[in-house]
Amino acid sequence: MAKITKVSPLAPAAFPALPVIDGVTFSTIAAGVRYQGRTDVMLALLAPGTTMAGTFTRSATRSAPVLDCQEKIGLSSDEGAAIIVNSGNSNAFTGKNGVISTRAVTAAVAAVVGLPETRVFSSSTGVIGEPLPHDRITSKIADLAATQSADGIADAARAIMTTDTFPKGAAAEFSIDGKPVKIAGIAKGSGMIAPDMATMLVYVFTDAAVDRETLQSMVSRHCDTTFNAITVDSDTSTSDTLLVAATGASGARVTADNPAFSDALHSVMLDLAHQVVRDGEGATKFVEIAITGAATDADARVHALSIANSPLVKTAIAGEDPNWGRVVMAIGKSGAAADRDLLSIRFGDVLVAENGWVSPTYSEAEAAAHMKGQNLRISVDLGLGSGASTVWTCDLTHGYIDINADYRS
Amino acid sequence: MAKITKVSPLAPAAFPALPVIDGVTFSTIAAGVRYQGRTDVMLALLAPGTTMAGTFTRSATRSAPVLDCQEKIGLSSDEGAAIIVNSGNSNAFTGKNGVISTRAVTAAVAAVVGLPETRVFSSSTGVIGEPLPHDRITSKIADLAATQSADGIADAARAIMTTDTFPKGAAAEFSIDGKPVKIAGIAKGSGMIAPDMATMLVYVFTDAAVDRETLQSMVSRHCDTTFNAITVDSDTSTSDTLLVAATGASGARVTADNPAFSDALHSVMLDLAHQVVRDGEGATKFVEIAITGAATDADARVHALSIANSPLVKTAIAGEDPNWGRVVMAIGKSGAAADRDLLSIRFGDVLVAENGWVSPTYSEAEAAAHMKGQNLRISVDLGLGSGASTVWTCDLTHGYIDINADYRS
Repeated sequence: MAKITKVSPLAPAAFPALPVIDGVTFSTIAAGVRYQGRTDVMLALLAPGTTMAGTFTRSATRSAPVLDCQEKIGLSSDEGAAIIVNSGNSNAFTGKNGVISTRAVTAAVAAVVGLPETRVFSSSTGVIGEPLPHDRITSKIADLAATQSADGIADAARAIMTTDTFPKGAAAEFSIDGKPVKIAGIAKGSGMIAPDMATMLVYVFTDAAVDRETLQSMVSRHCDTTFNAITVDSDTSTSDTLLVAATGASGARVTADNPAFSDALHSVMLDLAHQVVRDGEGATKFVEIAITGAATDADARVHALSIANSPLVKTAIAGEDPNWGRVVMAIGKSGAAADRDLLSIRFGDVLVAENGWVSPTYSEAEAAAHMKGQNLRISVDLGLGSGASTVWTCDLTHGYIDINADYRS
Repeated sequence: MAKITKVSPLAPAAFPALPVIDGVTFSTIAAGVRYQGRTDVMLALLAPGTTMAGTFTRSATRSAPVLDCQEKIGLSSDEGAAIIVNSGNSNAFTGKNGVISTRAVTAAVAAVVGLPETRVFSSSTGVIGEPLPHDRITSKIADLAATQSADGIADAARAIMTTDTFPKGAAAEFSIDGKPVKIAGIAKGSGMIAPDMATMLVYVFTDAAVDRETLQSMVSRHCDTTFNAITVDSDTSTSDTLLVAATGASGARVTADNPAFSDALHSVMLDLAHQVVRDGEGATKFVEIAITGAATDADARVHALSIANSPLVKTAIAGEDPNWGRVVMAIGKSGAAADRDLLSIRFGDVLVAENGWVSPTYSEAEAAAHMKGQNLRISVDLGLGSGASTVWTCDLTHGYIDINADYRS
């Protein structure tokens, strides 16, 4: 892919100040997996007693590291844990070499830091189909283990970037039973982003104490309304990985019905998911698609994604065109229940269409003014029931073509 | 949409010489529905005894003319018939006005040419959501009826164009029981093209004598492997209409098991479907996606469309990049059965990947050479069963963004 050095116009003003999470340390290194002159491997070490949860791509062609993580994530353990991530090469569709490389990396980490291999989780992101030069990584493990730092999370966020134009981080701080609790997360992702674990790597850390089943249940549930509710280009990666680690170092114990932790975890996940869309390849507009009044929540999701993934809707947004006819088209083609004459469409607060036609109060000038903003909202009420769903996407621009139509280098 | 005057690089060298079909005449006129300085309405008149068949978009937000045609297409009649089509305005999502305008047009034709309204079929194509100025059409019906010509089909093909860069026609001539039979068809379509009746209008005429049920059965069956097997942008129109009229004037009677007619009809439909892809908005490459070895034909179709609609695959094709990793990604995300380690991928004749990795015989130079052609083929064998499906698509280029991101005018 072409190197795009310009930062997305939708990027946050700065990388947020992320709190130190007791029980986790980080280090990064320039291993030269593919990129030169930048860090491309990060190692996070988790204290004994850490619980792990995760969700992964459901792609039928998922990568060797993803399959390896999936085997390990459900195992209980009182040991510490490690997360090792490289950028530049996804180790996906690499045949038997994929398994060999994944094992080489996780075994090297296990040996150096003194963990069982089942507690070493690895991710790889970058080009598909080329063998991972794992020797470049394994030869750096000792250095990575020797340079661990409690405040290295921002560097870690940079080491895992591929076509990302900015590093992504989010945090939450709150209390449980008077004990302060922190959550900090990082993510990478820019293209090949679509629901079913949008194409990305995400690592979230907290010092809360959460048992594995509770943590996994919360993570899986929140994924539906965060990372599985975003789409840049409808294309799903073979490497999507979300890992959440709870070190318990705060001493604050989270139970299944604890809304403070659940809400904070959700907010961190949603913030990171939105940042991935804001770094969507070529994106110039951040768009919320909100569906209400559908027959079911599932129908609402189908309609929302049909709009969010429609090239004609996305190019109209790029052109700042309040082209609601294309929204009607996307609803019509989705396959979910809709009645042409019952639906209403809003661009921002502007009622565009109702009763099967343009609204008598519709002002094209007002709708066009909304479209000139960077943060847009298209809402549709189907008028059929109480099903609802919200997803987030970006526009489809010349920038996307520039990034993806260049010969891969 | 922006006016793009450059003809697609994938266009046929010239509009084909279409045979006169006994029993059908055409006329066109510049009614000024939206466009200026060009014809925008065509009227075709069919002789008494003509049988009609058709398929239509299944969009939940389909247009008033489509709903009207669907009500009429199943009715038997010994009367003649008429087809009236306007470009520039689709009369879709126009509320109650949609029905009023459709009735106004079909009633005017019926009155002028002496047919029952149930034998007048109308189509409209163009902008969505604006009232059809039907008076501009109805005031021209008498002129259209007075200027009918047996050899007017090429002019008809031009009158129905919207963003098309070339008129589309195809024909077949053959014999049944020693009697010569002719089929001639025209189509329009360029953007908002996806299966489920790809977004287009298609009119096919033959002088064979075919009973209505036989004709409808053949048309519906052939639609699956022609117009429902193409995609430009995955977006489905609210106006898709295919009408097939058999005048019987040749005296050649077609029975349900007549392969000569069925094959010829299929070839005309496929030729027109391919021409629509060749006029895909911004297209520079015509791409056949052929799936074999799937668990079922339905699975093969899902895989084929997942590849054909993937923005990352389509931009790679635009960049002449044999990026088979994106093909793997598209198979993985489709949801249909696949085994990463059993599938094989070819670009043209070049075996790219097999056994879960790049083929040992793969030559990037050979694959890249294939990608430089205008007519490409990507074939995937899943290695699971005997399911097969072939679809056709085009690349995704800056041209598509140019055409669709401009403020509609």
